[in-house]
Amino acid sequence: MGIKTSAEYLESLKKLKPTVYIAGEKVEDVSTNKFFQPSIKEVCKFYDWTNDPEKRDDFVYWSSLINEEVSFWTHIRETKEEFVDLLKIMKKNNARNFCSFCMGIGPCVFWATTYDIDQAKGTNYQERLREFFKKLQREDLRFCLGVMDPKGDRSLKPSEQADPDLHLRIVERKADGIVVNGAKMHTSTAPLAHYIFCAPGGFLTEEDKDYAVSFAIPIDTKGITFIARPSPCPLNATQMSNPASIRHNMVECLTVFDNVFVPWENVFMAGEWEFTDRFIHYFSSYGRPVKATCISARTDMIAGAAALIADYNGVSKASHIRSKINDMVISSEIGWGCVMGAVANSVDHPSGIPIPDISMSNAGLYHTRLRFVEFLGMLMEIAGGVVTTMPIEADFRNEETRPLIEKYFKAKSDIPTEDRLKLLYLIQELTASRFGGYFLSSAICAVGTPETNRLEVLRNYDLLAQIENVKDICDIKT
Amino acid sequence: MGIKTSAEYLESLKKLKPTVYIAGEKVEDVSTNKFFQPSIKEVCKFYDWTNDPEKRDDFVYWSSLINEEVSFWTHIRETKEEFVDLLKIMKKNNARNFCSFCMGIGPCVFWATTYDIDQAKGTNYQERLREFFKKLQREDLRFCLGVMDPKGDRSLKPSEQADPDLHLRIVERKADGIVVNGAKMHTSTAPLAHYIFCAPGGFLTEEDKDYAVSFAIPIDTKGITFIARPSPCPLNATQMSNPASIRHNMVECLTVFDNVFVPWENVFMAGEWEFTDRFIHYFSSYGRPVKATCISARTDMIAGAAALIADYNGVSKASHIRSKINDMVISSEIGWGCVMGAVANSVDHPSGIPIPDISMSNAGLYHTRLRFVEFLGMLMEIAGGVVTTMPIEADFRNEETRPLIEKYFKAKSDIPTEDRLKLLYLIQELTASRFGGYFLSSAICAVGTPETNRLEVLRNYDLLAQIENVKDICDIKT
Amino acid sequence: MGIKTSAEYLESLKKLKPTVYIAGEKVEDVSTNKFFQPSIKEVCKFYDWTNDPEKRDDFVYWSSLINEEVSFWTHIRETKEEFVDLLKIMKKNNARNFCSFCMGIGPCVFWATTYDIDQAKGTNYQERLREFFKKLQREDLRFCLGVMDPKGDRSLKPSEQADPDLHLRIVERKADGIVVNGAKMHTSTAPLAHYIFCAPGGFLTEEDKDYAVSFAIPIDTKGITFIARPSPCPLNATQMSNPASIRHNMVECLTVFDNVFVPWENVFMAGEWEFTDRFIHYFSSYGRPVKATCISARTDMIAGAAALIADYNGVSKASHIRSKINDMVISSEIGWGCVMGAVANSVDHPSGIPIPDISMSNAGLYHTRLRFVEFLGMLMEIAGGVVTTMPIEADFRNEETRPLIEKYFKAKSDIPTEDRLKLLYLIQELTASRFGGYFLSSAICAVGTPETNRLEVLRNYDLLAQIENVKDICDIKT
Amino acid sequence: MGIKTSAEYLESLKKLKPTVYIAGEKVEDVSTNKFFQPSIKEVCKFYDWTNDPEKRDDFVYWSSLINEEVSFWTHIRETKEEFVDLLKIMKKNNARNFCSFCMGIGPCVFWATTYDIDQAKGTNYQERLREFFKKLQREDLRFCLGVMDPKGDRSLKPSEQADPDLHLRIVERKADGIVVNGAKMHTSTAPLAHYIFCAPGGFLTEEDKDYAVSFAIPIDTKGITFIARPSPCPLNATQMSNPASIRHNMVECLTVFDNVFVPWENVFMAGEWEFTDRFIHYFSSYGRPVKATCISARTDMIAGAAALIADYNGVSKASHIRSKINDMVISSEIGWGCVMGAVANSVDHPSGIPIPDISMSNAGLYHTRLRFVEFLGMLMEIAGGVVTTMPIEADFRNEETRPLIEKYFKAKSDIPTEDRLKLLYLIQELTASRFGGYFLSSAICAVGTPETNRLEVLRNYDLLAQIENVKDICDIKT
Repeated sequence: MGIKTSAEYLESLKKLKPTVYIAGEKVEDVSTNKFFQPSIKEVCKFYDWTNDPEKRDDFVYWSSLINEEVSFWTHIRETKEEFVDLLKIMKKNNARNFCSFCMGIGPCVFWATTYDIDQAKGTNYQERLREFFKKLQREDLRFCLGVMDPKGDRSLKPSEQADPDLHLRIVERKADGIVVNGAKMHTSTAPLAHYIFCAPGGFLTEEDKDYAVSFAIPIDTKGITFIARPSPCPLNATQMSNPASIRHNMVECLTVFDNVFVPWENVFMAGEWEFTDRFIHYFSSYGRPVKATCISARTDMIAGAAALIADYNGVSKASHIRSKINDMVISSEIGWGCVMGAVANSVDHPSGIPIPDISMSNAGLYHTRLRFVEFLGMLMEIAGGVVTTMPIEADFRNEETRPLIEKYFKAKSDIPTEDRLKLLYLIQELTASRFGGYFLSSAICAVGTPETNRLEVLRNYDLLAQIENVKDICDIKT
Repeated sequence: MGIKTSAEYLESLKKLKPTVYIAGEKVEDVSTNKFFQPSIKEVCKFYDWTNDPEKRDDFVYWSSLINEEVSFWTHIRETKEEFVDLLKIMKKNNARNFCSFCMGIGPCVFWATTYDIDQAKGTNYQERLREFFKKLQREDLRFCLGVMDPKGDRSLKPSEQADPDLHLRIVERKADGIVVNGAKMHTSTAPLAHYIFCAPGGFLTEEDKDYAVSFAIPIDTKGITFIARPSPCPLNATQMSNPASIRHNMVECLTVFDNVFVPWENVFMAGEWEFTDRFIHYFSSYGRPVKATCISARTDMIAGAAALIADYNGVSKASHIRSKINDMVISSEIGWGCVMGAVANSVDHPSGIPIPDISMSNAGLYHTRLRFVEFLGMLMEIAGGVVTTMPIEADFRNEETRPLIEKYFKAKSDIPTEDRLKLLYLIQELTASRFGGYFLSSAICAVGTPETNRLEVLRNYDLLAQIENVKDICDIKT
Repeated sequence: MGIKTSAEYLESLKKLKPTVYIAGEKVEDVSTNKFFQPSIKEVCKFYDWTNDPEKRDDFVYWSSLINEEVSFWTHIRETKEEFVDLLKIMKKNNARNFCSFCMGIGPCVFWATTYDIDQAKGTNYQERLREFFKKLQREDLRFCLGVMDPKGDRSLKPSEQADPDLHLRIVERKADGIVVNGAKMHTSTAPLAHYIFCAPGGFLTEEDKDYAVSFAIPIDTKGITFIARPSPCPLNATQMSNPASIRHNMVECLTVFDNVFVPWENVFMAGEWEFTDRFIHYFSSYGRPVKATCISARTDMIAGAAALIADYNGVSKASHIRSKINDMVISSEIGWGCVMGAVANSVDHPSGIPIPDISMSNAGLYHTRLRFVEFLGMLMEIAGGVVTTMPIEADFRNEETRPLIEKYFKAKSDIPTEDRLKLLYLIQELTASRFGGYFLSSAICAVGTPETNRLEVLRNYDLLAQIENVKDICDIKT
Repeated sequence: MGIKTSAEYLESLKKLKPTVYIAGEKVEDVSTNKFFQPSIKEVCKFYDWTNDPEKRDDFVYWSSLINEEVSFWTHIRETKEEFVDLLKIMKKNNARNFCSFCMGIGPCVFWATTYDIDQAKGTNYQERLREFFKKLQREDLRFCLGVMDPKGDRSLKPSEQADPDLHLRIVERKADGIVVNGAKMHTSTAPLAHYIFCAPGGFLTEEDKDYAVSFAIPIDTKGITFIARPSPCPLNATQMSNPASIRHNMVECLTVFDNVFVPWENVFMAGEWEFTDRFIHYFSSYGRPVKATCISARTDMIAGAAALIADYNGVSKASHIRSKINDMVISSEIGWGCVMGAVANSVDHPSGIPIPDISMSNAGLYHTRLRFVEFLGMLMEIAGGVVTTMPIEADFRNEETRPLIEKYFKAKSDIPTEDRLKLLYLIQELTASRFGGYFLSSAICAVGTPETNRLEVLRNYDLLAQIENVKDICDIKT
């Protein structure tokens, strides 16, 4: 059955024996290691959703691939309508839960790439991919994405680097598979997923063809080492002090491949450098709307937090605060509107799936993610300096100091001080904590940067057509 | 036949005998008056398009209302797809021709309002409207819109004004019709249209119910006076000096109603103040995407002009210029993406027509229109100070000075100086002329202002839902 | 006596016989030619100010050079305090009169350049300059500035151009002077000044040393041709319709030099290419504060116009309007504050004059000029669409239509409609007219562009010092 | 002697016995409590500077009050030049050390307030203040500022609050002093200072005259309780992981006054509500330039960090990165330029000290602090996603994982990976940590908020004068 429980997930995690380091120590059992607990709880939550009658509608799907019910995270969207549904669920869900674990979406785009390669080269990558997805669906497995390479000196191509491993590459081709060397950065949720799915991080030219490699393998494959980074949720987190990071946090990872063997059935690209531009195009076409939806939803959350603290402080009618919230709302709608426009303007890929318009989604994402940064500052301004000067929860729990805090952190007289503190601690996490940094970075750096968005919009724009229009207006014949 | 030629239009214009003043004089014959010629040429151009085999596909439609071919300007769009088609035509066309004469779209939204009123009140407004549109379609007539009232002191409601006529109102109800008094501002293209179509300019409350009035009447109805304003096209315009205003210009008008009688069959609202909010909502839902599409297209044009002059000047690779053009392109995509998103997220009105999402279109329009202002400045910066210091065309035509101008206005050596001048004169019109003012005003003030956009997004946003999300995250129960 | 009257100025103008073309015709007598009248009136106004007891304090100075009273426009400021005084007069005056005719300031910076060259090369340029200024002061003469060259293909240096004349250059060196060929663009107020003062428009390298040339000569010197452009003031201007352009307008010019002989005593640079960077630095150091002051003052004017029309319309308490005016006021203060900071942080040049800080003034100017563009849009939004749709003055003067205009353009009941129209016509000129284009261009393109400002701030910034700070913080030793 | 050593400071700290809570516990000895150690080290550093021959010039002054050398922190600046010196030291110092402990500046402005009150009321507040400062100078003592009240419901005045203690107030006036009740928020560095100096946090009206109270008392005065918040420096901080917070961090505090007796000689305002507006004006006039200088300096630091990481990553020539750094530099100059302008435009207070221009400094601060928020995002973008995904220092110290980190975090081949990590950890602290939150909050919320800046500029602007200018231009007589 394509739907598993969180208990089954934990069991499966226990069976994996990956090589993992975190916080200076080797990890014996990921499933019980203290540093991984907050993130494991979140992954379990996603499993629980599929088993929750109230959330089932959003998170359980029928797969035509295996003719079974499967989860939100293994289901492949084949139509515009399905993709719009997914985005609407994220839009609603992320405003409350921060995250819908969207990484599963990315590789769906490999569907299109493998199709293109197979058509041009007579390979059978898509067949392999289909089999891989069937397994994922049947066993309700998770994978993490390995796309970004360490990259070394950014002014040099992969093969020009002093160390050729600074981008993941094929070092040997065998009868039964390939051997790869190198590393992937930002492999979020590794090693809590079952598989790692790798793909090239940029356009490649012919001299870099060994870097054109894509595959998926179990995380405990020989030769893989994970150096994980503790999630932004403190080990001693509480609901009151850490309302955000206790709900959402994600372990991040450097994943090193030391002569790792990948059998052919798990390989989806091996040297076809000419298709890396399409892969990036498809990846971006899917990734941008997802990211823009996420930021739009999180902007909604910030607008809610701003409105609530303004109300608690007795200033909800101040025109500058209304104006700031209005700014948030507009930016949220711009991001979301461009996402909806991008999907509405999808083109059909020959493989059958829609490819959303890349310009609209990049434009919307560019706008909404940059404004997001400003909104964190606005939220802090609206909440006030107390966000970084208020006593911590321990003093609120201390019987000697609590009455003073109750008295002096009271704002509007009908709002319990405790409620105001809870909200201030949320705002603290969002704007002034390791979580806040993660929140910001997720807006700025994840799924391409603002500058990438700019370039992609310009690259896909027909400036020549506009020049022709202007020449026509001016009656310029040359 | 629902498609007329420009010759037939001119003939029809000659038959109308409206009361018109322009530039201090009474107009005997609009069709031959010098001040109206530039605008008449443009209206004729629209008629010509429907008779041009190359443009026919975009501008001729089949009307199920009269079972005949009708023009772009009288056709009623009944589905999302039809509305998207219209927008795509505008997007493509306005980048070259500035304008697609979109005013015809506005009152289509009266379709929904009359339906709502009829359902609630048992009136038969929609039947009247259908008959009116049949006439328009069969005779391929044009109408201008009278929506904005003079408004007097903006801090007072219509009935609170010192002069009750400062908003158009019903002063008498008769057996065969109503009598109205007042005026409408910004009645663009009046008196070059056959009809004027009036509607309320804002929400009304019960005490202002006499102001809740909508109707359409011939422009030469007794009691109507038009005080027109010369279009921004100079009377001695040339293709070289006035490439923009010779192609697009629009006469503007103050239209005064002095006890004008309107027969019932032409009345579509008469006192139903409770429906003015819906009317405004529908008007906005249709008007914003149209406006945002227009500005997006004009932004495309500006990007083209910027790219071409940068090329002529030899600076097309300068990073700051590429970045400015990139900004233009992004803003164009944001406007356009939000428009496409708004239509994709239409809700179906019971009358059968789709109502586009009002938040997305307002958000996109807000952004793109404000950036448009900045882009005019950027275009001027890229073109350089010559835009307002260069010799005028007459000196280029003077044999004594032409060689000096040819020599010293030469930029890149393979570009004829004349071509560069033609482009500079276009940029001059776009940024530094009466046309430029009209261009700017059309972006800033037409179809609602930026502030209206802000308010509409906020008004339609569910802030309470976001507050609930935040309370859930914080575990706030109260 | 160093103070002349406007009558004396007109007389002097009549005596000059320059070669001038305008609007396709050769000009026989500049002083009586209709196209020059608006600008001549403005120049006369400046002469009148020095003879006006109420304005004398601001516009008459004591010159230590000739021990006589001289005018604001020929006086050389030798101290920070004097320069601050000048800026304060401009700040106050330009908010009401648009312009204080600041061009005279520019070449004062040649004081420093000639000093530097003389010190390094043993030349006697400064002595010549002093004599030239004595003459200017004694006769109260005006000069226009010729700094910007036509420049041709901007990607090529002067000597690399297909036509070597695209930058002004020395073509022959004689015993008694030099012969120059080429042209200068944007020679504002030429040919209404007595002299044209030329200088290089950019940094030059050794191969372009013939382009390192500076001199001042009478405008009717043989070989000079002026192709002038009519000022943005219409020939039939009225106080009501043209309140801005009737007060401020400036004829612009292309000035061509066809083998013009310049005697040595009028030459201030002739081949010293190594000093062009200093000249540009000094020019910028003086020009930026002057420009930023001007834009700050004009922003004040826009804030005043916005506040007044908001009041007339009955919306002066609307929070978004207050906020927009607040934005204007902040930008005005930023420009002005940076100007005051720049002068306060002047360094003393060995010649005795202060060189204002170039970074602060460029930074302030960059900000305030870009916001200025947005403010024009805001002003238009606050005034409303009527700015480009209202009847023109002729209809207000027409007895038949005036009552309708009086009635329907009434806003707040205690404000005469005529006053509101007067103000709307001003706003029309500022935002939607040829004057508006000139106004905008003066903000964006005159005295360097925004991009120049950016580069100058970066070029003068000690980024290395900041890198050292960061290394110290990080304990990075390499 | 007015200069003490850090050892003497620690000794003095040990002698104080304030009532202090932190992190849920009562503190026995502040000087040894672990939570206070990072901040104590920083305060000691300031003492050390006055004893460091290399820094002495900047941090030791001659006091005419006591005719002795005193430290930067007790010295009263009496002239513009002295204030400019102070600002220049901050500008240079804060770019490397984050902070120059500027709180001492604030109350210097009380000099002017007490003078005004004494003149009007015949009180002798200034005499008391002078005696207090003499003591501070002679013993080189530190004080913290208590200005901001808890404020409760921001829509209500102090005396309208449900709890009258939500602003600090006089509850009893005795022969020998006053008794105060209430609290102060954000009392930074309390209880590491010797004194707390209180003053009103806003304008007061007559009904709130008991809230018009200012005084200075030792921190261990009976009835005072401090609830401190741990500084953003982790207890286990290292130079590599915490280069920012180990250098700068500040304990924050809620300070509660429970019927605290203040002897008259320490009271500087007691009921003179009419002078609270002046106090706020002076406070702002001094506080804004100091804050703007600080943010300008920290923006310099961010520009340095951005330039260095761009270099390490091999992308220092990318035009978008240069442009972002250029933006930082411009904002830094705008802040700094406005500060210099504000001081240059000081007006002399009758007490002898200069009052800097409040509009320029608020305008500059407004701009530079809002851009600062964006720059944090830009810095993160330039550094890349690694900032929140890289392994922590412990893994770099682990011999098993270090070689992998050395290999895969290598960027430009000549830069040691360790140096790049050090810099990335700094950027992590600046943008993605509790320190980052503090850094942001210090820019957004400390010394007034952006909205306060807006209001102060508008309030001090002569809009009426601009309206008069516009009326003159338009020839409007009414």
